[in-house]
Amino acid sequence: MRIVRIAIAGFGGVGKATAHLLLSRRPRYCHVYGADVRLVAVCGSRSGNRSDEGLEEDAFSNLEDGLSGPDFIAQSNAEILIEAGPSDFRTGGPGLAYLRSALSAGCDTIVISKGALVHSGRKLRALAEGSGSILKLSGAAAAALPTIDLVEQSLKGCEVLEVEGILNATTNYLLDAMVTRGIGFETALREAQDGGFAEADPRNDTEGWDTACKLLILANFGLGADLAMNDLAVEGIQTVTSERIAAFREQGLVPKLIGHFSRSEKGIVAGVGIRSYPLSHPFAQVRGKDKAIRIVTDAMGETLAMGSGTEPLATAAAALKDLEHILAARSALSGFR
Amino acid sequence: MRIVRIAIAGFGGVGKATAHLLLSRRPRYCHVYGADVRLVAVCGSRSGNRSDEGLEEDAFSNLEDGLSGPDFIAQSNAEILIEAGPSDFRTGGPGLAYLRSALSAGCDTIVISKGALVHSGRKLRALAEGSGSILKLSGAAAAALPTIDLVEQSLKGCEVLEVEGILNATTNYLLDAMVTRGIGFETALREAQDGGFAEADPRNDTEGWDTACKLLILANFGLGADLAMNDLAVEGIQTVTSERIAAFREQGLVPKLIGHFSRSEKGIVAGVGIRSYPLSHPFAQVRGKDKAIRIVTDAMGETLAMGSGTEPLATAAAALKDLEHILAARSALSGFR
Repeated sequence: MRIVRIAIAGFGGVGKATAHLLLSRRPRYCHVYGADVRLVAVCGSRSGNRSDEGLEEDAFSNLEDGLSGPDFIAQSNAEILIEAGPSDFRTGGPGLAYLRSALSAGCDTIVISKGALVHSGRKLRALAEGSGSILKLSGAAAAALPTIDLVEQSLKGCEVLEVEGILNATTNYLLDAMVTRGIGFETALREAQDGGFAEADPRNDTEGWDTACKLLILANFGLGADLAMNDLAVEGIQTVTSERIAAFREQGLVPKLIGHFSRSEKGIVAGVGIRSYPLSHPFAQVRGKDKAIRIVTDAMGETLAMGSGTEPLATAAAALKDLEHILAARSALSGFR
Repeated sequence: MRIVRIAIAGFGGVGKATAHLLLSRRPRYCHVYGADVRLVAVCGSRSGNRSDEGLEEDAFSNLEDGLSGPDFIAQSNAEILIEAGPSDFRTGGPGLAYLRSALSAGCDTIVISKGALVHSGRKLRALAEGSGSILKLSGAAAAALPTIDLVEQSLKGCEVLEVEGILNATTNYLLDAMVTRGIGFETALREAQDGGFAEADPRNDTEGWDTACKLLILANFGLGADLAMNDLAVEGIQTVTSERIAAFREQGLVPKLIGHFSRSEKGIVAGVGIRSYPLSHPFAQVRGKDKAIRIVTDAMGETLAMGSGTEPLATAAAALKDLEHILAARSALSGFR
């Protein structure tokens, strides 16, 4: 049986969930792809662990200081890197160095963190094309909610005219709580922070940046666009006061933070902002931490998807869906190098 | 440029729409796949047309009697057959002979009509495996609504625990009209018949058989089941009287005709029947001729998709999405035979 070596860089909640799910699915990879999938290296920002025979669960809590960084991963001889580090779209974050190193070396790469893709998407894609490596990023494009899949698989051949998405769980939770329970932004935010799904500094979510990152990744990697963050008008939910909520309610409308993209003869328009929907619109029913996307194409009309997986498991599953697509593609292409 | 020869068997509304859309996308196939895609044969039940150079639009209204049947298609040397004939799940319909012939000969096949897949799905799959041909069937599994795509692509690696689907446009239109406008079944049916989206004999839709066919195809081709029609309890919308509608309304519920599938330790349970949903459930908002599916998996929670394409264009686009997947797969596998 062919051996497939996997490394995970970034070992917080999502990286660990991915590692656990990967180990639990090893029998499936054997059975379906004839692949002995081994997790040969994991690392966080300062420490890591490695085994040519494949790490088991007990190794995850036993990381060694100093085992970290792109060279550590390169030395593991992994054919596939899963990048799950912290996301920073202004600098590319720590993921950028890992991705550059892996893609240059012809290592197939599954990206979960958005920062590097937003910061250097075009360069990373060029690196992948140059080395013949596969670059997958379901985990970075709204994770368990199908987005790029829909465009590339379900709607293949159609021209995408318009996209609207509720792409950020935290802001949807906050708005939903404010609308349905009449609580204020600060109270809702504290709830979300206590629940562990809003950061201590929530601005990346509440100011719309996380939504913008996902939209930009979808546009650039799924819709043939070449947008930079500066091309997007980005508005958050800070402007949604209790008074505005009350006004929406009076009109029978539900406000949502929407990433939107449209393409016409005049070109591409993309941005993030508040839009409101009548109760009969499916977006009005997207509750709590759920996400949704609506895609309009020339030949298939409107297609909507909604997702409500539990994190971090759902994001781990999105990354490992990418892994299976790589396993299948490499099988078809006569095996791993 | 490599030439890819396509034949279409079954030349009613959907077959013709597929032919038109295919011709309009020839520049795309050239550009994206380096393929000179030619429509070398089309036929209905009694007449057809053929050209090695590829048929143009004007040939579609100029069919010659006697040019029809599996041998006619075989003589066209098509590498890909699109089967769009009338569907009959009790006999397999005329599609069955075309599919047997094409799949035996190693011809890749895109199936739009459901009958043969329900009647002889396992045998057809075995024929495809034996000859190495690709068998695709998006057009038969709820067309523009992503169903098998979702399972095979977006949810890959996850275990599907439960599926519910509003899979039949006609019955959803009828129920929606009865619920939202308070009209009776007969009035709604006449509207749908006048609008051309209900048959003169509507029982295939109203008795639940079309929903059952789609569910069975999804189960057998997408979910690893091996069901026959007799394994499904099939109920239609005939039992939904005005009195029942009124009772649902009073409870704030919306009735829908649902194909459902669930898998547990006890085995698979699948069927078709009326289920009702509160207004806050996305299914309650699936209006008119729209369709929807809800899939519950172990690792990604709930995923919903809703679609509202215009027929027959949307079904044609679903079939041609299959074509692109075949073009891509054959490119990866070093070209056509």
